[in-house]
Amino acid sequence: MKKALVYIQSGGPTAVINTSLYGCIKEAKKHPDEISGIYGSLHGIEGLIDDQIIDLNKESDETIELLQQTPGAALGTTRYKLPKDIADPIYKKILETLKRHDIGYVFVNGGNDSMDTCHKLSLLFKQTGLDCKVIGIPKTIDNDLTATDHCVGFGSAAKYVINTVKEICTDASCYKKGKVFVVEIMGRNAGWLTASVDLLPEGCRPDFIYLPENTFDLEEFLVDVSETYKKKGHCICAISEGIVFERDTSGARIDAFNHVQLGGAADALAKIIERRLNLPTRSIELSLIQRADPILASKVDHDEAIECAKVGLNAAIKGETGKMVGIIRKSDKPYKVEYQLLEISKIANVEKTVPFNMIGGKKGMNNCFKDYLLPLIQGGIEIKYKNGILETAKFEKHRI
Amino acid sequence: MKKALVYIQSGGPTAVINTSLYGCIKEAKKHPDEISGIYGSLHGIEGLIDDQIIDLNKESDETIELLQQTPGAALGTTRYKLPKDIADPIYKKILETLKRHDIGYVFVNGGNDSMDTCHKLSLLFKQTGLDCKVIGIPKTIDNDLTATDHCVGFGSAAKYVINTVKEICTDASCYKKGKVFVVEIMGRNAGWLTASVDLLPEGCRPDFIYLPENTFDLEEFLVDVSETYKKKGHCICAISEGIVFERDTSGARIDAFNHVQLGGAADALAKIIERRLNLPTRSIELSLIQRADPILASKVDHDEAIECAKVGLNAAIKGETGKMVGIIRKSDKPYKVEYQLLEISKIANVEKTVPFNMIGGKKGMNNCFKDYLLPLIQGGIEIKYKNGILETAKFEKHRI
Repeated sequence: MKKALVYIQSGGPTAVINTSLYGCIKEAKKHPDEISGIYGSLHGIEGLIDDQIIDLNKESDETIELLQQTPGAALGTTRYKLPKDIADPIYKKILETLKRHDIGYVFVNGGNDSMDTCHKLSLLFKQTGLDCKVIGIPKTIDNDLTATDHCVGFGSAAKYVINTVKEICTDASCYKKGKVFVVEIMGRNAGWLTASVDLLPEGCRPDFIYLPENTFDLEEFLVDVSETYKKKGHCICAISEGIVFERDTSGARIDAFNHVQLGGAADALAKIIERRLNLPTRSIELSLIQRADPILASKVDHDEAIECAKVGLNAAIKGETGKMVGIIRKSDKPYKVEYQLLEISKIANVEKTVPFNMIGGKKGMNNCFKDYLLPLIQGGIEIKYKNGILETAKFEKHRI
Repeated sequence: MKKALVYIQSGGPTAVINTSLYGCIKEAKKHPDEISGIYGSLHGIEGLIDDQIIDLNKESDETIELLQQTPGAALGTTRYKLPKDIADPIYKKILETLKRHDIGYVFVNGGNDSMDTCHKLSLLFKQTGLDCKVIGIPKTIDNDLTATDHCVGFGSAAKYVINTVKEICTDASCYKKGKVFVVEIMGRNAGWLTASVDLLPEGCRPDFIYLPENTFDLEEFLVDVSETYKKKGHCICAISEGIVFERDTSGARIDAFNHVQLGGAADALAKIIERRLNLPTRSIELSLIQRADPILASKVDHDEAIECAKVGLNAAIKGETGKMVGIIRKSDKPYKVEYQLLEISKIANVEKTVPFNMIGGKKGMNNCFKDYLLPLIQGGIEIKYKNGILETAKFEKHRI
């Protein structure tokens, strides 16, 4: 079947989201007999709904190469969720766009919600009889997709978080009387990224590590912070943005904390520490830089980003559909993986949190977590700068 | 005169503060006839007061080499300010420590406040007749020391800020309907670091840039943000932590903002935007990572950090005292500097803000600023990682 492909980026960007796109374009160009056009959908599934499709074959080689070090989503992204009812007129519009451009392959690069998009498209094509393959390429710094050993994007984000928290710890401990630092790391329900700081050696690691999977007891936490500060002159806590904690029995301002979502947890916690313990406190949110920084991308993650796209493309050409490319680990030392096609229906909307056998308590993780994470942060990519500034790709966006 | 030297790190760390220390140690080792010992004072001047001195000659070569990529202040630092009255018993303790260890050279690596320390020591030695030379090595990401063209540490911080803000802008603009981002950059009274983002090209730069030197008109700002968001679907503002603004005529919560010092300005401003414009808003503080990240250190800054220490050491050996090493620019293109010894009395406690002829308004800077900054962010240093994690130096701290 000779048809065009369309590539969709969906959900929050990662350091290597555009690297998968790079991998797909490069591989697609090797298949001129099967692929009649290489298109990109602007702003995720919204581009298919509104017919905002660009021709990626018309972008320069330099732009395509630079995708590997470009933050954000080069095609634009979306958090739009497709309606449940397949009779919704939205679906008619999608089908029209696909037919108009003779598209036979759809690639959805994303996380949990995006695999829902992927799943719904596969059901749509099945029900309408449209001969269009749809394949999911896993991507999320949250590392919370099920069935796959890990998610593309996680390794680079973890490498950023580990190194940045090391810098923070080293800086924070250079005053005799320092501060309490509360460092907030992304992860609403799954604490994979926060857990990653456990790889840091004694002396330059947080004193406490709280994932959403830990029970967070505010009173115990305040005692811990107070004792550590007394002993060391500073105290560093790493928390997931989604840490859950019981209501402060003493009252005020805790309600406000409970309302804070996605960004702001560290700030709220810092205010409580300051008020209750009267210690100089500072919150640091790693914010969206942790998902946007290509400079600390891991080579393993980068290579897997390309490989997943490649595997996905070849699977689609062979007729596979309704699948997500999964990474299956064969061994830790040496690190070996293989790629498998996983049923999308079993992945969409399922969330994989950090298993309890990996969590060692508020101080850190177990060794099995270290064995799991270490291979994923290895190596780096060569970054091109122009006059000291990171070079990035920007599509010319030739509409079709 | 054959005497020992003692090195003091003072004030906030920079990405290259330990690189100057490296430079001093390496150069001192070349002068065995003049330098009898290479010592470090723990926690700045506090080490001289409390006799907490370590022998840097006993640290391994590997540790010394790694100083070049170690965040924080490897000797520990302080914000302690020496008393005005030279009869204060503190000074007696300092003199005792210096005599006890036969110290004849004191190097103070720091910014404004630290040059005050340097100045007071030079007065002390003059008045007491102690034959001890004291030399200041300039260091501050704030770039606010007078008389020198720029400060060691600024170029690396600027390179970090520019590249990180580029990542933020690229990530922030990938949704159709995004957010208002307020990015807070260090600089209490001097906006040099915030101004640096002006080097970013159109399309991945903040829409507005506010320094403490700009007049910040809240009402005008809100109109600007609102219009930009309407047009682009997002809006990115870079502000100095020290921006000054007039009182909001509409009332509530502005007082709270005025109380926010050093960290928190963006957060307060974001809350105002959200409340007044009802737009999704997020604040991002670059926080202490901007002064702690060696990965984005500039080679020019790194080399100057070493050179300043070298020049300072050789000047002290030749008998100079009460001076700070200044960097005098001879030309922008090609970038050429020379080093001069500047009277410490004229530098201590004086602050150099961004001159108005460099400021182009709320949208950015003038070309003369670009010519000034561009050479300072050039090149990078080779970073050593071990298993994906930045290697850092930690002194064994052999007390003498």
